[in-house]
Amino acid sequence: MYTVKVRNSIMIAHSLPNPFFGPAQHMHGATYVVDVTFSSEKLDPHNVVIDIGKAKDITSDVLSHLNYKNLDELPQFINKLTTTEFMAKYIHDKIKEQVVAFFEGTISVCLGETHDAWASYSGS
Amino acid sequence: MYTVKVRNSIMIAHSLPNPFFGPAQHMHGATYVVDVTFSSEKLDPHNVVIDIGKAKDITSDVLSHLNYKNLDELPQFINKLTTTEFMAKYIHDKIKEQVVAFFEGTISVCLGETHDAWASYSGS
Amino acid sequence: MYTVKVRNSIMIAHSLPNPFFGPAQHMHGATYVVDVTFSSEKLDPHNVVIDIGKAKDITSDVLSHLNYKNLDELPQFINKLTTTEFMAKYIHDKIKEQVVAFFEGTISVCLGETHDAWASYSGS
Amino acid sequence: MYTVKVRNSIMIAHSLPNPFFGPAQHMHGATYVVDVTFSSEKLDPHNVVIDIGKAKDITSDVLSHLNYKNLDELPQFINKLTTTEFMAKYIHDKIKEQVVAFFEGTISVCLGETHDAWASYSGS
Amino acid sequence: MYTVKVRNSIMIAHSLPNPFFGPAQHMHGATYVVDVTFSSEKLDPHNVVIDIGKAKDITSDVLSHLNYKNLDELPQFINKLTTTEFMAKYIHDKIKEQVVAFFEGTISVCLGETHDAWASYSGS
Amino acid sequence: MYTVKVRNSIMIAHSLPNPFFGPAQHMHGATYVVDVTFSSEKLDPHNVVIDIGKAKDITSDVLSHLNYKNLDELPQFINKLTTTEFMAKYIHDKIKEQVVAFFEGTISVCLGETHDAWASYSGS
Repeated sequence: MYTVKVRNSIMIAHSLPNPFFGPAQHMHGATYVVDVTFSSEKLDPHNVVIDIGKAKDITSDVLSHLNYKNLDELPQFINKLTTTEFMAKYIHDKIKEQVVAFFEGTISVCLGETHDAWASYSGS
Repeated sequence: MYTVKVRNSIMIAHSLPNPFFGPAQHMHGATYVVDVTFSSEKLDPHNVVIDIGKAKDITSDVLSHLNYKNLDELPQFINKLTTTEFMAKYIHDKIKEQVVAFFEGTISVCLGETHDAWASYSGS
Repeated sequence: MYTVKVRNSIMIAHSLPNPFFGPAQHMHGATYVVDVTFSSEKLDPHNVVIDIGKAKDITSDVLSHLNYKNLDELPQFINKLTTTEFMAKYIHDKIKEQVVAFFEGTISVCLGETHDAWASYSGS
Repeated sequence: MYTVKVRNSIMIAHSLPNPFFGPAQHMHGATYVVDVTFSSEKLDPHNVVIDIGKAKDITSDVLSHLNYKNLDELPQFINKLTTTEFMAKYIHDKIKEQVVAFFEGTISVCLGETHDAWASYSGS
Repeated sequence: MYTVKVRNSIMIAHSLPNPFFGPAQHMHGATYVVDVTFSSEKLDPHNVVIDIGKAKDITSDVLSHLNYKNLDELPQFINKLTTTEFMAKYIHDKIKEQVVAFFEGTISVCLGETHDAWASYSGS
Repeated sequence: MYTVKVRNSIMIAHSLPNPFFGPAQHMHGATYVVDVTFSSEKLDPHNVVIDIGKAKDITSDVLSHLNYKNLDELPQFINKLTTTEFMAKYIHDKIKEQVVAFFEGTISVCLGETHDAWASYSGS
């Protein structure tokens, strides 16, 4: 199994309006350090899992729609609890849409939210 | 010169309502990974710069008033541009208030806002 | 597959009294930077793998029984070789005991012992 | 599942002479921060996955044949595209040769090439 | 004293043709993880040390002339020993040229060349 | 001002037998991730602050006398509180002894003891 991982980050505001989340119910924010890992059983003829330039560009493009945003105002997140786990899957799904035509492996998205907490989603 | 550094983090929302800040004018957020460094020319009789337990507690206490908050709603930040540099000095000043009675050295506060950007303030 | 990971650390003394371990046979010590990862196929109704506050509290509680201890003096480790691998499984088992009633996924515990060495245990 | 991971690094020059690689077609170089992970279902009688001293020595020995080299000049890489993925597998295979007599688990080699890009190969 | 720091990286080949450098005399390469710190006694009217977007763009522009290059082939480095220290000062000087018209503080450039070695230059 | 920094680590046991240190009064231990920074106003004729190979060897040699030791048993630490600050200065002094004949700049030693605490000593 081969992997390629690229890193980027976004800065967002949101709230988690459910008593379960205690102080995070109120409007606050986060930097997500976003690690996107592409996994594949074999390399292509250029000896790569995926064109890393394309991987970086697609990741940047997907994240640009979230960066500097208040997630509570985005229509796709209305009445959703935008937890870190949920956002990892959301970003995974958006990246997958853009690579599905030419990449068949597994994609994993890990969001680092502080120096001591992370969440991720992997799908194939 | 001796130093002791402790790390913690906060998750806040804010906006920077000035055209200078481009997309960051709008409500967004950040995790600040907060490094607080205490510097001193000599050690106390216990061979420490500062009681590290007290340093951690004071840092946690100061940050608790900011964590999970929307800075735009806090009275002390009305009509202020809460840039990372500004927040580094604000946190510095609040920590200094709590240690000034027993610590005479320099305090530096560094905020990591993404995996590739930091800002700090140092004062003595 | 979703994951949530939290980080904490402990500082312990121990010895590894077997010639296999060379200089580590003698009393020495370690900081273990402890990463605990909870993995699950699906999210709960709050869109989380596990309540991260509870995950942090349970991790802190388990580690508090080891932190600032000499492992050689703890009854559960008498005549055991408390290697990093062994301690990863021990911490895993203690965390599992506390979450098994409400968490069904896999738990992985990784201990960073220096800037260039780690050991882990994963179980489900 | 238990793992042990050790870290080292090498500094190499190479070129990727295919238009696919854009500016990386020309002679350039990289530091690879090399993480080698050994995984095993159970511990040996010394409670370890593998003798970590031996793991470090073997990793150092394998890397010494690449460190401070121009990969384009090494006979084993003639007419090969020495991408990071390819080099991860190459290093994996060389380490495996040296441990296969006494280690039966999986070996994973991850190369960090910048602060925001990594590639790996895992084989069993 | 306030600071802002931004991170980027470059991948270069070079040789250090002097017996002093042992195996590094031969063609090899490096990734330099480049940290550029801007320091200033006070903030500007936007509460920043320097426009961080401009700081990132200038850093990227300066590095683009080195990235994916063989330093031995660049005219400005003929007969120079392009050590990490030397390159830190070179990058410092090129960044300073681009900010000197509007930034009066100190600039520090730190190059991380492996997971266990760094060099820097600071000038005002 | 130029700097060169090298990283290594040690694993030690010790106790801090004074009520000031709470639970750390008892025998425990630590990994210190040791960063040694050499600073100098100018480069030598080889364009370096200090021969990095020599800097690494001297650091390793100094640390070898502490690694895998119980500091409480070493004669030089009898009746000393071996805090992280104290150990940073001790290591600084030992490195200085070995470089003073050929290096005139400042030496700084920073010890990382957990993922969220560090102490350092700098002297010239």
